[in-house]
Amino acid sequence: MSRKWLIKNGTFAVLKEDCTIVRGYMLVEGDTITYIGEQRPEGVEGAETFDGKGLLFLPGLVNTHGHAAMSLLRGYGDDMVLQNWLQEKMWPMEAKFTGADVYAGTALSVLEMLKGGTTTFLDMYDHMDQVAKVVEESGIRAVLTRGVIGLCPPEVQDQKLQEAIRFARDWHGKADGRITTMISPHAPYTCPPDYIEKFVQVAHDLDLPMHTHMSETLAEVEQNVKDYGARPVEHLRKLGMFSRPTLLAHAVHLTDEEIYVLAAHHVAVSHNPGSNLKLASGVARVPELLSKGVVVSLGTDGAASNNNLDMFEEIRLAALIHKGVSGDPTAVPALEALKMGTEYGAKSLFMQNTGRLAAGMKADFIALNTEQAHFLPKTDYISHVVYSAGPKDVEHVWINGKQVVKHGACLTLDEEKVRFEAQAAFEGLLAR
Amino acid sequence: MSRKWLIKNGTFAVLKEDCTIVRGYMLVEGDTITYIGEQRPEGVEGAETFDGKGLLFLPGLVNTHGHAAMSLLRGYGDDMVLQNWLQEKMWPMEAKFTGADVYAGTALSVLEMLKGGTTTFLDMYDHMDQVAKVVEESGIRAVLTRGVIGLCPPEVQDQKLQEAIRFARDWHGKADGRITTMISPHAPYTCPPDYIEKFVQVAHDLDLPMHTHMSETLAEVEQNVKDYGARPVEHLRKLGMFSRPTLLAHAVHLTDEEIYVLAAHHVAVSHNPGSNLKLASGVARVPELLSKGVVVSLGTDGAASNNNLDMFEEIRLAALIHKGVSGDPTAVPALEALKMGTEYGAKSLFMQNTGRLAAGMKADFIALNTEQAHFLPKTDYISHVVYSAGPKDVEHVWINGKQVVKHGACLTLDEEKVRFEAQAAFEGLLAR
Repeated sequence: MSRKWLIKNGTFAVLKEDCTIVRGYMLVEGDTITYIGEQRPEGVEGAETFDGKGLLFLPGLVNTHGHAAMSLLRGYGDDMVLQNWLQEKMWPMEAKFTGADVYAGTALSVLEMLKGGTTTFLDMYDHMDQVAKVVEESGIRAVLTRGVIGLCPPEVQDQKLQEAIRFARDWHGKADGRITTMISPHAPYTCPPDYIEKFVQVAHDLDLPMHTHMSETLAEVEQNVKDYGARPVEHLRKLGMFSRPTLLAHAVHLTDEEIYVLAAHHVAVSHNPGSNLKLASGVARVPELLSKGVVVSLGTDGAASNNNLDMFEEIRLAALIHKGVSGDPTAVPALEALKMGTEYGAKSLFMQNTGRLAAGMKADFIALNTEQAHFLPKTDYISHVVYSAGPKDVEHVWINGKQVVKHGACLTLDEEKVRFEAQAAFEGLLAR
Repeated sequence: MSRKWLIKNGTFAVLKEDCTIVRGYMLVEGDTITYIGEQRPEGVEGAETFDGKGLLFLPGLVNTHGHAAMSLLRGYGDDMVLQNWLQEKMWPMEAKFTGADVYAGTALSVLEMLKGGTTTFLDMYDHMDQVAKVVEESGIRAVLTRGVIGLCPPEVQDQKLQEAIRFARDWHGKADGRITTMISPHAPYTCPPDYIEKFVQVAHDLDLPMHTHMSETLAEVEQNVKDYGARPVEHLRKLGMFSRPTLLAHAVHLTDEEIYVLAAHHVAVSHNPGSNLKLASGVARVPELLSKGVVVSLGTDGAASNNNLDMFEEIRLAALIHKGVSGDPTAVPALEALKMGTEYGAKSLFMQNTGRLAAGMKADFIALNTEQAHFLPKTDYISHVVYSAGPKDVEHVWINGKQVVKHGACLTLDEEKVRFEAQAAFEGLLAR
């Protein structure tokens, strides 16, 4: 992993407030970026060079909430009331998912994510060994966690908890360090309080962060108050979850007080604008969260409720909807939205060395082809990325220093095989 | 124009309520679709065939509101308060636009639109002869209209009106019928009432439809009430505009009563969700408009306030934001959103024979490459187009029976030249 190579003629989105773009050189050694600057670095005489002309280099996009295998149910039920969608469409099909289905669906999702510039994703699902296998093979970086629903007898609860522990322990740090793990009770409304406390204890024991769904719908918040006499933030705080580094998915319905508590406990939020809009869950209070210092990142959620895994779309939605809904055209400006999809994504996942283009960071980055009409004129590349770019502008992708997408084609997965197997898996589910 | 050719193995989005997709054959004769069906049509022995395997054929997308030349200002000012954006950024630059700039900006926009599957666009701007020239050369279909701002002395008002008349008369029906024209006072807040009445008379004299901006912002509605004692709908109705076929852009802020009046007068609305969100204008009452029978189509607005000309994004936004904001996940379902971007677009522009895939319609259609991860599994192609597709999934585009995009490359415009000249024009504007 000592291979040294140099990008010249590059335009690099370093995303600092006072300097968003650097034009010049980037040096990669093994899995790490070791230099970015206008001047050619010293001591690179023998290094291989890569011509970055016409390309815009960005940190790889970070998708902080999803269920990759659910791409097998993309388009299987849309425009429905949430409970009907879950009860008539999603749950009956998901109950039939085998490990092989999860492998096929995850491979389909990872293919879409890699080609669309996502270099790190969080996945919360079942049959997680299969997900880890896809991550290992594809070269992507991932935070993996067995999401446990606790509405079951105590012995099944215990078995699922043991499985979550086993998975988190087995895979943490694997695949050249590309896989890390978390501990995830599915949600306050699907896990009894004493069961959530057990997960908190496990997270302490294994020294891992926690992840859960929270306050996605208003009904869920009202039910929490009815069942436990507290809104979800206070409920989870009392159960000790915020004593661990924690990432909450959705957090759509929050009071000022709850935002204050999240900020005080350094709890991160994965904002899923596409999914929240499509399922009519509402619009999260993102400008308020950001202004109070909460780290807000972006997630696609599963492809059954999105219905794609396009992080450019989530970045754009984050920049657009909060302006439209608040009436403030300065809300969530382009630079902030792009950081939500990159730097804040890595922070949400408690990663120290990914999410930015800077010396010392892991070499996870993507190159967009800017020689296209929608990148002109050359005014503001950050604006163009946020308000105009799309997944198929991604020309190349590198993760951990290794190229995984070249001229739009995936180097690590057999695209045709992945597509064929996903379709076959869906047909198998329908037939069973 | 009698050339006959047959698409076989095609999947055609005919978008009927009871049958959204037909698999089989489509016959094109000259500029017209003459057959779609599962069976091979009779009498096509000698016809050239085109293999549609792996392609999804859609009616071409129809963009019903925009200012194409403004792509020269893409990214030149973002995330600003509307009045500052206009006064500090847009207006000083637009005042410098020459005919050559309008040509360069329009060519850049038409290139982006063609490659992204838009086959018809409405353009309201200045130097419209240059816009017509680009339309003529590029093969796109367009509804063109000189947008007139009337805040000027009477002699200038009169000169602009004469120019609008001359343009509308000269170009209506030109370019093999691909160009039609409209009559456009810019907006109720930029044109005095007696001036708007003159445009209404002209529209009657030339038998042309009318187009204007209306109720984009709340401030504009309040000003209208203050200045004229009526909200914009009542104001325009009194001035006689709705006695003509009329298309209103934006119409964000409407009362129930105003929606009723628009429906009663068969006034169409161009909904511009991307621009309305970005400029924080608000969220139009689209579900209510549709339920009262108003024809609602989609527009990108200018690329300076969007910042792209991607109609897939507008279709998706239309399907997403009204669910999220209303709390109703069944609002604006996928099929309705796709019709807004196609069939309803053509209706909004008062075109009788475009906007659908059906025998007798003009041969304006596009083919998407569905052999990609985000089109799997093969559940519901309408859902995939609306919730998952993007502009670069467009493989081929035909307009008026003639192919203008082939394997993603534009056949009618020199892409490199268009990009170079747009950048040069922007630099010229900055330097002047």
